[in-house]
Amino acid sequence: MVRIVILGQGLVATHFAVGLERLKEGLIKDYGIPLRDKLPISYDELEIVGSYDVDEDKIGKSIYDIARRIFKDIEIPDSLKEIRIERGIHLGSLKGLPFKARGREEDIGLIEAINQLVDEWRSLKPDIFINVITTEPAEPMDSIDEIEERIREGRVSASQAYAYAVAIYSRNVKPAAFINAIPSPIANDPGFVELFRRSRAVVFGDDGATGATPLTADLLEHMAERNRRIIDIAQFNIGGNTDFLALDLPERNIMKKKTKSSIVEDILGYHAPNYIRPTGYLEPLGDRKFVAMLIEYMSFNGFKDELYVVARINDSPALAGLLVDLTRLGKIALERGEYGTVYEVNAFYMKNPGPKNAKAVSKILAYHRLLEWLGAGDERIL
Amino acid sequence: MVRIVILGQGLVATHFAVGLERLKEGLIKDYGIPLRDKLPISYDELEIVGSYDVDEDKIGKSIYDIARRIFKDIEIPDSLKEIRIERGIHLGSLKGLPFKARGREEDIGLIEAINQLVDEWRSLKPDIFINVITTEPAEPMDSIDEIEERIREGRVSASQAYAYAVAIYSRNVKPAAFINAIPSPIANDPGFVELFRRSRAVVFGDDGATGATPLTADLLEHMAERNRRIIDIAQFNIGGNTDFLALDLPERNIMKKKTKSSIVEDILGYHAPNYIRPTGYLEPLGDRKFVAMLIEYMSFNGFKDELYVVARINDSPALAGLLVDLTRLGKIALERGEYGTVYEVNAFYMKNPGPKNAKAVSKILAYHRLLEWLGAGDERIL
Amino acid sequence: MVRIVILGQGLVATHFAVGLERLKEGLIKDYGIPLRDKLPISYDELEIVGSYDVDEDKIGKSIYDIARRIFKDIEIPDSLKEIRIERGIHLGSLKGLPFKARGREEDIGLIEAINQLVDEWRSLKPDIFINVITTEPAEPMDSIDEIEERIREGRVSASQAYAYAVAIYSRNVKPAAFINAIPSPIANDPGFVELFRRSRAVVFGDDGATGATPLTADLLEHMAERNRRIIDIAQFNIGGNTDFLALDLPERNIMKKKTKSSIVEDILGYHAPNYIRPTGYLEPLGDRKFVAMLIEYMSFNGFKDELYVVARINDSPALAGLLVDLTRLGKIALERGEYGTVYEVNAFYMKNPGPKNAKAVSKILAYHRLLEWLGAGDERIL
Amino acid sequence: MVRIVILGQGLVATHFAVGLERLKEGLIKDYGIPLRDKLPISYDELEIVGSYDVDEDKIGKSIYDIARRIFKDIEIPDSLKEIRIERGIHLGSLKGLPFKARGREEDIGLIEAINQLVDEWRSLKPDIFINVITTEPAEPMDSIDEIEERIREGRVSASQAYAYAVAIYSRNVKPAAFINAIPSPIANDPGFVELFRRSRAVVFGDDGATGATPLTADLLEHMAERNRRIIDIAQFNIGGNTDFLALDLPERNIMKKKTKSSIVEDILGYHAPNYIRPTGYLEPLGDRKFVAMLIEYMSFNGFKDELYVVARINDSPALAGLLVDLTRLGKIALERGEYGTVYEVNAFYMKNPGPKNAKAVSKILAYHRLLEWLGAGDERIL
Repeated sequence: MVRIVILGQGLVATHFAVGLERLKEGLIKDYGIPLRDKLPISYDELEIVGSYDVDEDKIGKSIYDIARRIFKDIEIPDSLKEIRIERGIHLGSLKGLPFKARGREEDIGLIEAINQLVDEWRSLKPDIFINVITTEPAEPMDSIDEIEERIREGRVSASQAYAYAVAIYSRNVKPAAFINAIPSPIANDPGFVELFRRSRAVVFGDDGATGATPLTADLLEHMAERNRRIIDIAQFNIGGNTDFLALDLPERNIMKKKTKSSIVEDILGYHAPNYIRPTGYLEPLGDRKFVAMLIEYMSFNGFKDELYVVARINDSPALAGLLVDLTRLGKIALERGEYGTVYEVNAFYMKNPGPKNAKAVSKILAYHRLLEWLGAGDERIL
Repeated sequence: MVRIVILGQGLVATHFAVGLERLKEGLIKDYGIPLRDKLPISYDELEIVGSYDVDEDKIGKSIYDIARRIFKDIEIPDSLKEIRIERGIHLGSLKGLPFKARGREEDIGLIEAINQLVDEWRSLKPDIFINVITTEPAEPMDSIDEIEERIREGRVSASQAYAYAVAIYSRNVKPAAFINAIPSPIANDPGFVELFRRSRAVVFGDDGATGATPLTADLLEHMAERNRRIIDIAQFNIGGNTDFLALDLPERNIMKKKTKSSIVEDILGYHAPNYIRPTGYLEPLGDRKFVAMLIEYMSFNGFKDELYVVARINDSPALAGLLVDLTRLGKIALERGEYGTVYEVNAFYMKNPGPKNAKAVSKILAYHRLLEWLGAGDERIL
Repeated sequence: MVRIVILGQGLVATHFAVGLERLKEGLIKDYGIPLRDKLPISYDELEIVGSYDVDEDKIGKSIYDIARRIFKDIEIPDSLKEIRIERGIHLGSLKGLPFKARGREEDIGLIEAINQLVDEWRSLKPDIFINVITTEPAEPMDSIDEIEERIREGRVSASQAYAYAVAIYSRNVKPAAFINAIPSPIANDPGFVELFRRSRAVVFGDDGATGATPLTADLLEHMAERNRRIIDIAQFNIGGNTDFLALDLPERNIMKKKTKSSIVEDILGYHAPNYIRPTGYLEPLGDRKFVAMLIEYMSFNGFKDELYVVARINDSPALAGLLVDLTRLGKIALERGEYGTVYEVNAFYMKNPGPKNAKAVSKILAYHRLLEWLGAGDERIL
Repeated sequence: MVRIVILGQGLVATHFAVGLERLKEGLIKDYGIPLRDKLPISYDELEIVGSYDVDEDKIGKSIYDIARRIFKDIEIPDSLKEIRIERGIHLGSLKGLPFKARGREEDIGLIEAINQLVDEWRSLKPDIFINVITTEPAEPMDSIDEIEERIREGRVSASQAYAYAVAIYSRNVKPAAFINAIPSPIANDPGFVELFRRSRAVVFGDDGATGATPLTADLLEHMAERNRRIIDIAQFNIGGNTDFLALDLPERNIMKKKTKSSIVEDILGYHAPNYIRPTGYLEPLGDRKFVAMLIEYMSFNGFKDELYVVARINDSPALAGLLVDLTRLGKIALERGEYGTVYEVNAFYMKNPGPKNAKAVSKILAYHRLLEWLGAGDERIL
């Protein structure tokens, strides 16, 4: 069994939990899970054993309760009644958002909160931690010393505190994987990667590659392979889920912009003027975001072409589908003893693949490197 | 030097000629030429030595004259004044279109016309023939015997007659490559591939991969790698150039439909309902066609996403840019003695890559196979 | 009460029936009904009293049964159990489509079939007939004499036969309105308009203005009022309902093309090159069609602008919403004694507003003329 | 003759000047001028007699010089060599933008600068002033007293200072019209409207209705007339001209947002959630902006439709074309003695039609009211 703990019981985590259980019960197909049933770990082996959040409205409820609020038309598997959402670490990660939030560190201090978590995990025995808390401001740290100093001073983000706790747990209890599906730099933080390596833990990150960014990456690869010169790229995103609401706060939007700005140059090999960032919040759109994109490029003989993309994408299911792979790949990396981080996994699944300074490549190339890392071929092709 | 003969002095051929000369003079960048200056043959080595057409309005004119009619804002290189358009083979390839066309076979019979062409080429000494005549109806042939029988009876298309002449020329004078950039099946015709192989000739084809089809192929690969289940695909094309005019005639439209229908299943590994075909003719659009596409797919947890693409693509420059590669790759194949056809070249550059029954793959994968065939890496990546 | 008979119990009629009953029960808002509750006839006064079809799979079933097959997620009002679908007139209107169809004229001849219908209506006492049979080929007739001659010879379409029956009914039993929501020319047929006028009947038609055509009309008006010169218009439609399937048959497609081609010139005052027609059939799209449009125009100082529209429109509910107005307007016209046809109604609600040779105007202008005809103002504005 | 002074010799003013001269010379058609040649004032009667700017790079140059920098492919009429750009009023209107700007008030104080301008105009004898300076922050004033107080204290924007100068000029020299084509509130400023009325001057404003806003207005009218319930509207704009650059500065963006937010509710009659604002600056787009829009709405029977619009619009020519009307309408209003402001003109040509609290209506309705005001019909229709 692969034992999974959820950090942040929001829309993505709830899609993950509901989708996984429905999949195990044969109620849905495994669409949206890139590696499907080709991995040596079956869907049935995945088990959610714990969940943490800081929203007072969720703490103490079961995942089933949360799911019922969100999904009107879907029958929620009863198995989700057994997982209760526990109070997690806040450290201001929901600051400015319209939620009543409180973390356990506010009562007992950060160090003690981390110790408590590790103790709880000692009995839950998780292999995998999925970090899907709301986008938060966070700064990378260069060394283990800096991490420890800032943990002592409480000057870290919630993701960093969770990641630190997972490292402690891995060292003292059992090797574990930390799937960092949000923009906070963990796999891109040299301090954390080193801490994980030394703790027999692995981190995948950062920022799950869903929505328009991987599509843009592959479109740019398509252009680059024809030597079409990109003149400019504009990409707008608007949605109505909590993540877009959070991104309306300027200091959070910066996190997203940092993530996305480098892919254009990494793939093309030159700088192309671009405007790529989440654009706004519009409540009725809900989780089904609206993406609009323009790519202008020079073709042969001095002629200019124009490409427009409009998409309606369900944001959270897309990421939840990737998590079904990432939890299994985390387990595989641990079994292989590949501690620290794994670029081959990050390059395909993450918008900002760690380690720091690793280049973004088009997702199509990353996919084939991932298959190589797995020692697998693509049966569609071979 | 690589000596090139053009078959069909239409928009594509004129973009090719003008673009190539401007490139050699340093007036434009090499955008739209996939392999750029990475091939062992430089742009300066490419030389157009002859051109054939059946439009009475073109025969006897120079490429310079033709280019002047088409390009109002571009200065046409003087070097194009030296290449005169000769009368080619018609065989009804412009039937139904508003041009006054006459082929030399109408005066002297097909066999004699082919012999004349081979004689002319004996002095021109071309290495490469580019077939860019207007889309015509044509049926594949299974064997060399059948080709010869139908040539004798005059029951072939203009492309088939040209291909046959190139084979004769290759056998008797000098190995040559036939770049079949239109849908007529030549690289997909087992008879012709065998005839070329025996004649020390090579054919690349069929149907140059420009416009929306390669983009669709790469978008489908993008979806397939995420296990998103394609529900349906609709793709419309409308343009105002001769090719769209020709496709308005039902028996020509069929040629395009045949070309495109298989890529969806080849890439996805299953049948997805689709409507992909050139849709209409609208004169003021000229060569800058309008493409509209819809792709609907299932994501994780039973949710449906929608992707719309709108593009404005200059049709002829895109194909002309590919021809700058294909002429050089033709020469390379001849130097290596790779006669018949070369799947690795066709798979990237052609919509319907020969030989017959070869699978379509996404263009991004085909690109990397092409690099392997060349023994080259991609310096953007490695 | 306004007593309504449905001719053609397809998707539109079923949306009309289900939507109307749900509206009366307060289960839905009256969105999509242009004149809302502003007319002197309330929704509660509308009553469906009969329904006719020729599909063996529907005849003898209730509208409730039909609705259950179509709407998975909507509760169907029980009141629809009482209306049984009777056998109507076929005359080949479903020829070529994958339905087992048989009309009553095939057993007893057309004249007798018409007489039977009029007899049935004598007891049903309908005020309004809604013609929403599948698009069929049909030719207009110039005079009452011609209509009568061709009825005798059986050389009419199903719509024409129904319209003729309604005229007989109106003359002999009770004035009635015939809402011709499909392309067959009835309101554009001088013979039928005259026949209706003399029979104290009124026809509204032809071809309900839903989908992209009214939007195009208003966009063109927008351009015309700024003196932007339209260079070209392309508009594609693809859907998966029976109407699109029918339009795949060339002789039916012609009907649609006839309807739509004149609006461009009527609104702009000059001919603009255009390609506007239903484009294809793609089953998984169902009733939610995909529309793609391009409008290119000249702005000031010789500059060119481009407008692209992509839409996903539920085809049948849109038309069904208009029918809720048209049935009430039909009753109002009868009460006022406005027999024949009413251009002010047709101009807003129909793609091809009768009488013959009446000009199309933008729908926004037509809307204000309609309000004038009603003697009503628009409370949003005044 | 109608004598025109330009305030702000940017892209719009240069398109206006070049387009007008080319039009008078018969080099272009009058596309993009809504009322065309139907007004009693011909294009030949329009004469630019002066131009003001604060960019050191422009002052002292002729409009011909400025135009040559902008238009590579257009021959610039020689007549534009005679109009020299004079130093205008700055008051920080270009603050934060990459231009070296200096206004004459910086040397001699605002009062004296205004007096100088009035003196210069005494000899130029303009009838019309066009305000097309870059979007600036500005606050409305309630009364003439407040205007005069803030003028004395120098606490006004450049537009307000110009408007004040025009009022003085109108009172003392000759009635004049002030066309306020930018967002600064002048026609929406009760103080200015009253000042103009008393000074025998007229102001049209505010913010010329080009780009996506009038299109959105007409699309909303289209929906409202069908009682389609708008669920949400998202509209993105990105461009590369100075106006978009200016709007990147937060305090200027606010000006645009104020302008646009009310039209949705004014037209629909209810609040619909919307995100409508200029989104970003992307230099290579230049003046040809990229607009992307989503409108979601409820149709009949509880079904939801979706409309996407993508447009490429040349921003400045569109506004310049409107100015050809507005200068003539300004003269007509003066001749009729309609001082203050004219809602019928503003409603069609302006995004934020004055006077204050006037309702936005759809542009199509506004057009017909404008025709009424003119006493003219629309020959396309009548």
